[in-house]
Amino acid sequence: MEINGKRLLAHINALGKIGVGADGCRTRLAASDTNKEGRDQVVAWMKEAGLKVVVDHIGNIFGIWETDANKNEAPMMVGSHIDTVINAGQYDGCLGVLAGIELCQTLQENHVALKRPLVVGVFTNEEGVRYAPDMMGSLVYAGGLSCQEALASVGTDGTILGDELKRIGYAGTVEPGFLKPYKFLELHIEQGPIMDVEGYDIGAVENLQGIHWQKVTIEGAANHAGTTPTRLRKDAGLAAAKVNVFCRQLVEKSGGVCTIGTMAYRPNAVNVIPNEAKFTVDLRNPDKAKLDNDEILLADYLKELAKEDGVKITARRMTCFDPVPFDDGICQKVEAAARARGLKCRRMVSGAGQDAQMMARICPTAMIFVPSVNGISHNPKEYTPDQACINGANVFLDVVTELVNE
Amino acid sequence: MEINGKRLLAHINALGKIGVGADGCRTRLAASDTNKEGRDQVVAWMKEAGLKVVVDHIGNIFGIWETDANKNEAPMMVGSHIDTVINAGQYDGCLGVLAGIELCQTLQENHVALKRPLVVGVFTNEEGVRYAPDMMGSLVYAGGLSCQEALASVGTDGTILGDELKRIGYAGTVEPGFLKPYKFLELHIEQGPIMDVEGYDIGAVENLQGIHWQKVTIEGAANHAGTTPTRLRKDAGLAAAKVNVFCRQLVEKSGGVCTIGTMAYRPNAVNVIPNEAKFTVDLRNPDKAKLDNDEILLADYLKELAKEDGVKITARRMTCFDPVPFDDGICQKVEAAARARGLKCRRMVSGAGQDAQMMARICPTAMIFVPSVNGISHNPKEYTPDQACINGANVFLDVVTELVNE
Repeated sequence: MEINGKRLLAHINALGKIGVGADGCRTRLAASDTNKEGRDQVVAWMKEAGLKVVVDHIGNIFGIWETDANKNEAPMMVGSHIDTVINAGQYDGCLGVLAGIELCQTLQENHVALKRPLVVGVFTNEEGVRYAPDMMGSLVYAGGLSCQEALASVGTDGTILGDELKRIGYAGTVEPGFLKPYKFLELHIEQGPIMDVEGYDIGAVENLQGIHWQKVTIEGAANHAGTTPTRLRKDAGLAAAKVNVFCRQLVEKSGGVCTIGTMAYRPNAVNVIPNEAKFTVDLRNPDKAKLDNDEILLADYLKELAKEDGVKITARRMTCFDPVPFDDGICQKVEAAARARGLKCRRMVSGAGQDAQMMARICPTAMIFVPSVNGISHNPKEYTPDQACINGANVFLDVVTELVNE
Repeated sequence: MEINGKRLLAHINALGKIGVGADGCRTRLAASDTNKEGRDQVVAWMKEAGLKVVVDHIGNIFGIWETDANKNEAPMMVGSHIDTVINAGQYDGCLGVLAGIELCQTLQENHVALKRPLVVGVFTNEEGVRYAPDMMGSLVYAGGLSCQEALASVGTDGTILGDELKRIGYAGTVEPGFLKPYKFLELHIEQGPIMDVEGYDIGAVENLQGIHWQKVTIEGAANHAGTTPTRLRKDAGLAAAKVNVFCRQLVEKSGGVCTIGTMAYRPNAVNVIPNEAKFTVDLRNPDKAKLDNDEILLADYLKELAKEDGVKITARRMTCFDPVPFDDGICQKVEAAARARGLKCRRMVSGAGQDAQMMARICPTAMIFVPSVNGISHNPKEYTPDQACINGANVFLDVVTELVNE
């Protein structure tokens, strides 16, 4: 059995055209007009595929394929999101949603009877660009955030999510969590370079990295760059540089990754020693114990550095997500399916946050990755070759067919 | 013989009140209205002290005390500047100018006959805040920059210096350099913390650091902070951090100082690896060979780092001044005068640029430093205690009296 690659790619390209503005940028922020256009198109395709469409209070869309024979069983669920960042690519999220619809069509066309319902979910506001937090729809669905609180979220443009969902016609009628999935599987692009660099076709995602963000402020003393001898300096910028170098050493040992992505000096003048450096630390590790340990080692280092460099350092935690281990049984099925199709597969860690990490709270969950060329994502240059999409969707089909009939 | 401390301090405090705006900030940018007010006051005091006032084309003011007996001798010159940075202190530059007028008055009141004329110079635009370059008036005076070019300088506010000097009535009538000084001595606050921390009263400034500025751009690759493994990262921010750490090690060996005072990351987002880091390097050393060597070692390091971290690094030279050695004979006289008055004196390097460094091009030159409390300067908290000002002015008096009668 094979998915209809031509149809899948046509859907990806058609959805990719929705939300492209006069400036050529593709943007479908959660609950925006372009997001509504995308939702309407996806709902139309769901209906074409014979799925019953249900929308919940947080705007998650579910395309449900059930029969009288299986409607009392816990449904197999797949899905992802179609909201985007600003100036996005066309694969992130969309591949998983459209391949989900595609596999329903393929199974129907092949007259495969299912032991349990098959549901394709489209989760609201995965990107978190307009409303916080990200992965909101799946988080609410999994019971990790109250629906009222989420609907009251104020956007970067001052709008309220609940009002916007009503306005675009996607304030649904059912409670999030109304379907308790049997298992959940998400097909997604890697959004990183590993599979592309190493030449893999399929990633069996066994884990999602824990994420720990903090905002660090170092206060030193602004003095004249010429008249202040080294021994009397309290250089906040230099101390920040030492933290960056330390963090790299830290994750080289622990196997995580660390990024100091933002940096601001004050007064930021050529000939004045910085008296303040503010920066963020994004620390990730798939292993919770290692992530926690890196956090402790960094805190210890900041204390030591403050003493040594005569600066004051404060660190404020911004975000903290534990790593999410996925279901090993599903991963083994992904590996087996790839092998059967002659595709090169490796176990992967998801470096990015995903709807699947929220769904893992309520049912056995895993993900399938396909390569992102050069690891580029959140960018119009995001690209996964046609055959890679088709390969991913076929493995997705194989594993879902197996799971739905377990 | 003692200067009149009360009068000197009254002048310092009175000049310090000029240019204080409604916001409480003291600002007398070169050739501005408040600068004119300050100039008018200083000219009035020069006239009270019996000095003949001459202004040159670049707006430098000279208070000349000459007699029929000595008018054919090369004049002893002292001086400094009264223009300020934005939100300045009241000592930087002004102490040297006002102590110069004070010592003329003291010598006159003590009926000291001088073998050569004594001239107090007030140099235009030492700070370089409104017009570039800094130390402009003394540089033009010493022949290092053509007067036309300097007068054509366009300010940060779009004005032209020549027009502004005319407007405030200080476009003078004589050629810069019209007086060839016998020797030049400048009294100035240290603007750094060394004398305050170490408890010295008088600095015999024997040298002025060379200054080397460059703008460095590091280009890496902007990738996702979660999905990009360490080995595939090209983190421009981390590379910049390594440069900062390297520079500190460099000057710890060479005895210079180094400041990375500005830093800008792109895209500057928490979860994106910086693909660009732009920063400035301010490298100083009183020894030209060491400064040049540090520059070479830094350039070598940047090459090595580019290779190791897979980034592209470009460095563009902004400013380059060689160190300026001052006259050892004058420094010895400063030390002797301090000793005779029971004041604690040490040899000093000027970390900041000074008018004296330009005057050193045309005659034997040195400087006397008095301490800056906590090393603070270019700031309303800039402070030199009254007694420290008086001590400095008395040593200044002793040395000038000696030099003028050599």
